[in-house]
Amino acid sequence: LVCFGTLSVILLLKTKNKRKKKRIVTPKHLFFPDKSGHNASTLLNLISSLPSHSLDICVYCLNGKDFLEAILSVHKRGVPVRVITDNEESYVQIATLRKGGVQVRTNMSSSYLMHHKFAIIDRSLLITGSLNWTRQGLNGNYENVIITDDVGYLGGFLKQFEELWESFDPL
Amino acid sequence: LVCFGTLSVILLLKTKNKRKKKRIVTPKHLFFPDKSGHNASTLLNLISSLPSHSLDICVYCLNGKDFLEAILSVHKRGVPVRVITDNEESYVQIATLRKGGVQVRTNMSSSYLMHHKFAIIDRSLLITGSLNWTRQGLNGNYENVIITDDVGYLGGFLKQFEELWESFDPL
Ligand SMILES: [Zn+2]
Ligand SMILES: [Zn+2]
Repeated sequence: LVCFGTLSVILLLKTKNKRKKKRIVTPKHLFFPDKSGHNASTLLNLISSLPSHSLDICVYCLNGKDFLEAILSVHKRGVPVRVITDNEESYVQIATLRKGGVQVRTNMSSSYLMHHKFAIIDRSLLITGSLNWTRQGLNGNYENVIITDDVGYLGGFLKQFEELWESFDPL
Repeated sequence: LVCFGTLSVILLLKTKNKRKKKRIVTPKHLFFPDKSGHNASTLLNLISSLPSHSLDICVYCLNGKDFLEAILSVHKRGVPVRVITDNEESYVQIATLRKGGVQVRTNMSSSYLMHHKFAIIDRSLLITGSLNWTRQGLNGNYENVIITDDVGYLGGFLKQFEELWESFDPL
């Protein structure tokens, strides 16, 4: 299952340190499984390297080691990271993230799932799809990920994130 | 959680019987839960009323009564329907669809999930997101659905559908 290289989003990113523009070409979609590991690298690289202002994550199942490392590395760079997840599948990982200083809010309902699988980088790039941030998602399941900077999608997902962030306020 | 009405895809559809163009305005995204039931109606209406040439479904969990009725109604109108699903969660419903004459192919792997949640109408409109086609998806969970006619996405998902359709060939 190979990537179409023909259609892609071009993203201009002002890096925090170097104050020069870095050009990152992101695919419009990624499909899994991908035996080459290329798609997994692309996704993890986006999550860990791209954020310079914010990383907002809203993912149901979030227990993949590579994803956790990516999140913590962004936090360590000083970029504000917010994580929304469900308390059902990622119990241990929520504790790990909080211990590392990352803000995490969770859906505590036992009847309904916080089933989203999206993230927003710098309030300008949306990553969404079927893929949970797990080992099995990256390395076995049939999954899709969409990547877009289309404001028509971003507006709705930004609003959704803020609404859930408020409603899952731990206080 | 209300829909943004501002940004939408306009779709021109030539109906099979009346041979005149019907204009259907689809939102770019739907969020759930939606207490009004409006978003569920919009989605079910798209699936049941829009297809005039084909309906290709590739959804992990497909056991919601409303969705099954929508699928069977499209089939009964004479529109070719193909369903890919996982054998794990929709065992009874697969039998119901097959009994009704709908072609269904399933992922028989017990280690990995066919975890997609997308459908393509008339090879020109993609519906994808976190939402499984279940009662809980529509009526409880936090979920998103994206609707797009952007060929940049359609190309990849059409290809993915054909690849899985071939690889899950029951013969
Ligand atoms: Zn691709
Ligand atoms: Zn909306």
